[in-house]
Amino acid sequence: MAYQDDQTNDLVRRTDDNGVAVLTLNQPKSINALSEAMLAALSETFDEIAQDSSVKAVILRSAGDHFCAGHDLKEMTARRADSDGGFQYFQDLFATCSAMMLRVVRLPQPVIGEVKGIATAAGCQLVASCDLAVAADDARLATSGVNIGLFCSTPMVALSRNVARKAAMEMLLLGEFVEAERARELGLVNRVVPRADLEGASMEMARTIADKSPVAIKIGKRAFYEQAEMTLEEAYAYAGRVMAENMMARDTEAGIGAFTRKEPMPEWTGE
Amino acid sequence: MAYQDDQTNDLVRRTDDNGVAVLTLNQPKSINALSEAMLAALSETFDEIAQDSSVKAVILRSAGDHFCAGHDLKEMTARRADSDGGFQYFQDLFATCSAMMLRVVRLPQPVIGEVKGIATAAGCQLVASCDLAVAADDARLATSGVNIGLFCSTPMVALSRNVARKAAMEMLLLGEFVEAERARELGLVNRVVPRADLEGASMEMARTIADKSPVAIKIGKRAFYEQAEMTLEEAYAYAGRVMAENMMARDTEAGIGAFTRKEPMPEWTGE
Amino acid sequence: MAYQDDQTNDLVRRTDDNGVAVLTLNQPKSINALSEAMLAALSETFDEIAQDSSVKAVILRSAGDHFCAGHDLKEMTARRADSDGGFQYFQDLFATCSAMMLRVVRLPQPVIGEVKGIATAAGCQLVASCDLAVAADDARLATSGVNIGLFCSTPMVALSRNVARKAAMEMLLLGEFVEAERARELGLVNRVVPRADLEGASMEMARTIADKSPVAIKIGKRAFYEQAEMTLEEAYAYAGRVMAENMMARDTEAGIGAFTRKEPMPEWTGE
Repeated sequence: MAYQDDQTNDLVRRTDDNGVAVLTLNQPKSINALSEAMLAALSETFDEIAQDSSVKAVILRSAGDHFCAGHDLKEMTARRADSDGGFQYFQDLFATCSAMMLRVVRLPQPVIGEVKGIATAAGCQLVASCDLAVAADDARLATSGVNIGLFCSTPMVALSRNVARKAAMEMLLLGEFVEAERARELGLVNRVVPRADLEGASMEMARTIADKSPVAIKIGKRAFYEQAEMTLEEAYAYAGRVMAENMMARDTEAGIGAFTRKEPMPEWTGE
Repeated sequence: MAYQDDQTNDLVRRTDDNGVAVLTLNQPKSINALSEAMLAALSETFDEIAQDSSVKAVILRSAGDHFCAGHDLKEMTARRADSDGGFQYFQDLFATCSAMMLRVVRLPQPVIGEVKGIATAAGCQLVASCDLAVAADDARLATSGVNIGLFCSTPMVALSRNVARKAAMEMLLLGEFVEAERARELGLVNRVVPRADLEGASMEMARTIADKSPVAIKIGKRAFYEQAEMTLEEAYAYAGRVMAENMMARDTEAGIGAFTRKEPMPEWTGE
Repeated sequence: MAYQDDQTNDLVRRTDDNGVAVLTLNQPKSINALSEAMLAALSETFDEIAQDSSVKAVILRSAGDHFCAGHDLKEMTARRADSDGGFQYFQDLFATCSAMMLRVVRLPQPVIGEVKGIATAAGCQLVASCDLAVAADDARLATSGVNIGLFCSTPMVALSRNVARKAAMEMLLLGEFVEAERARELGLVNRVVPRADLEGASMEMARTIADKSPVAIKIGKRAFYEQAEMTLEEAYAYAGRVMAENMMARDTEAGIGAFTRKEPMPEWTGE
């Protein structure tokens, strides 16, 4: 289904620019809190993009000064009045949130987190869940739930798959902010740029990806996360099959052909 | 069981300071070698602390100029006179040592390694097994068994879960010392401070943890190591349940409530 | 089987220097492409070395200005004329290549990649597959297949086991070169030296390993990759058994004995 401009909703703005879908978290007053409505809007948007072959790469941006402050604690607190104290609601909420994060991982197109200001708790998890991330030099990331009695257990799943063990533990146990440059050293973001250059830097990265064969990108992104959970031997058996299939794509035949003849790359067809 | 001052033994001194248990390896003449007696003393101490809700964080310190030089090679060599050349003894010893290292990982309270001077072989493993570590700028770490014909196979288990593959291999195969600052770059320690500031730095870190809700810390530390061995999807399902349970803790309700009302955090009850 | 000088073939030169086997990829005109013949020559050479107890460490070097540019795309393209478009051939080729990479991992002796100039695609994978790597300051590494429509899926298996997730994704999705010093930061190579010092640096590292007990090295290298795929508890049970067996080696008894008596290390027997 092609992107329709009227699918933009209030919570997640979508603007497509020549194969790059820019999604903007658009609740700056709540620091883009991942409310039920926001989780639903993000999930819906990712589901649309998954089906939209015109999109080659995704940028996840934020309105306002900050990226995302995680869950909507007021909305959650209101459910303590439920007969079970909110337990079932909380279970469902974390499952919904995890499913949204998994949509990022499973989206055929790469997702670039564009981080400025604060990215905390599930907001930090969202950065960790992106395939790539660019941060403004003023960005500060934290898994800060521990400071208010709620350990960032689901954010930890994404964080600990990005960052070395003791660094992840430090963030989780101390709940302190990590500055952008330190986040880069730790592997939580790929690049740090001045705030004024942030949108340009993420767009440049997205454009680089959008210029590749979409079939190669789709095959590769999926294979990356699949093989990460296999033994070395299993991973090689799997990746060898994946690569042979990649060889049979029309784009790949054209691309390798052009390369061996020292010609410029063809227009990719995505097939 | 509350901590009794007379439980201090000669090998591992314990001093409690307002929720922080400071354990001191106290055999400086043998560079705090992990003899059978030392392993037993450490294991016993960790078992006590696991049951002691007054302890919120643990510092693992050393008497003398060095942290720990690993196994007691003289004690081990004496067992070559056994009828089987010591084989059964060695198996039991490594199993006992591994069980002690696993106690660090499984302790409900976070453990901060405080490293100065030399930390070699199983001493380096002990640093790697801690949740966090602070090093003096004179600290030097090595998995040096390879230099005398005994590859650091059990230390490798902890090391390779802290440090990237080629860096771990370099330490294991070359047996060379890694300086404190390089150990920080590799992820083997979290912070490096001047020797004079070492005890202050580890205590500051311990105090930061001790000021959190103990229920959140306990839930989170356990979940960290559990989810690390799961697939991404399993880990999310598990962590979502953990986090919903965390939400039901009295501390968490009070903490989130205070946060949403912009009040200071409550006194934590640990429930 | 002892090394025979006449086993040197045109594609892979082997020169033994006092326990260090230096293998040189010797097709500089094709930037040492991993053609079928080159894969066969490498596999054969590794199989010989696996049986050759005179070899204590291996250096993987390249003739010409570059390390290796990956698969032979012309050879592959020719097979598009097969009745199945080359699919079966490509499957077999990637399986053969993966088996060669696994030979590096499973070789009893450590393998040191000596990287200069370009190491791309399966050439970058070969660096990642080595136990250790030294790079000249002019070395540039890339998983560049994505640029021509063929995602580096098998190189990714090795790369993603060396390098943190977002950095691996960046290399794989963007297809850009990583300079030597950045490769060191990422963990893809251990050391960077001026080009003039490259052979000296890899030989120094190989010599350090060759001076250890071969039995300890062999036991340890194998255990490293085995335990990496186990849970923490399984890994400790396994490594404890490995270490007890290591204790029973003649070399180990002699080495520990000498150490406790403050004598120099013995001549290692490899038993």
